[in-house]
Amino acid sequence: MLGDTQKKGLLIVFSAPSGCGKDTVLARLEKEADFRRSISMTTRQMRDGETDGVDYYFVTQDYFLKKLEQGQILEYTNYNGNYYGTPKSVIDDWLKKGETVILKIEVEGAENIKKLYPDSIGIFLIPPSIKILEQRLRNRSSETEDEVQSRMTIARNELKHAVNYDYIVVNDLLDDAIEDIKSIIRSEKHKTERSKNIIREVINNA
Amino acid sequence: MLGDTQKKGLLIVFSAPSGCGKDTVLARLEKEADFRRSISMTTRQMRDGETDGVDYYFVTQDYFLKKLEQGQILEYTNYNGNYYGTPKSVIDDWLKKGETVILKIEVEGAENIKKLYPDSIGIFLIPPSIKILEQRLRNRSSETEDEVQSRMTIARNELKHAVNYDYIVVNDLLDDAIEDIKSIIRSEKHKTERSKNIIREVINNA
Repeated sequence: MLGDTQKKGLLIVFSAPSGCGKDTVLARLEKEADFRRSISMTTRQMRDGETDGVDYYFVTQDYFLKKLEQGQILEYTNYNGNYYGTPKSVIDDWLKKGETVILKIEVEGAENIKKLYPDSIGIFLIPPSIKILEQRLRNRSSETEDEVQSRMTIARNELKHAVNYDYIVVNDLLDDAIEDIKSIIRSEKHKTERSKNIIREVINNA
Repeated sequence: MLGDTQKKGLLIVFSAPSGCGKDTVLARLEKEADFRRSISMTTRQMRDGETDGVDYYFVTQDYFLKKLEQGQILEYTNYNGNYYGTPKSVIDDWLKKGETVILKIEVEGAENIKKLYPDSIGIFLIPPSIKILEQRLRNRSSETEDEVQSRMTIARNELKHAVNYDYIVVNDLLDDAIEDIKSIIRSEKHKTERSKNIIREVINNA
């Protein structure tokens, strides 16, 4: 089959300001597109209903710190005394197998990933407007006015990072945003620099 | 509406070796995608069933040569004593209105277009293999063995130009090729460099 020689996968770096519907978009995409979603490694306790290797890779602190020292953690954070990080080897294995990998990541971490994986494709999800983002945050009603204001300040700063991504997708209508991202994944696979093997194969297959 | 500030259109340069199904693909695309197809200008007589401004712009030789002198013809050829060329002003008008324009062009002309329109996107349609291309040419049965061989030599040379295009689409199953091209058009509109106005609008629309 054609394309079998094109082994190297596609790494998608996916970010969005808080309140933009990032997780809703990813959940829908998982049903409709063929890709691997990067799974984080954590040192926190597994909770009821969670599965190791699905929700997280649950590891000890010693193991996490050893991996960090070995440069095997792409980016990490410590929240509430527990480490959360993105393991490098799993992503590399998937990419080697030619799979599409989506990595959900904060804007600060994204620039670092682009340095490590120059071929990776950055997609930034943005709200239709700052006003709508504010409404969405208020509608959650779990947040106080101070929290909303603080999140808005963070979101405004995060939006400035949009220019560091390859594609901008506006999350106005969910269906459109999903189609946009699926189109980006499909079209990136046809980029000439990713298709050199195919051209060679077509010519030689005489 | 969002996106209204993003006025500049998208120019798609579309090429394929002879026998690759270029016209079939374009005809299907015209039914399914929203774009303008560049129309050639010609000095030959209008035939029965042809419409001026649909099949061609039918012009006098004086007019054609004047436009050529003014640099208003992007590329041209003379076949059987008649001129055929791509008029620049129509494409520029469409692009100014924010439309997507598809320009079907020979590989030789395509490189020149990329110089004139550095933002243009090149899509190269290729056969699944040289062998299948040869079969397709033979199945037309309108061609002699010599003609098939001569077309194959041309096709092999044209395939070498594939690397000058941004995207490679394999025309194996027509439906897939159509979806590939529609994805490319959709995703290109979300490229960050084409979306800077949108980012600005989202941030300012506070």
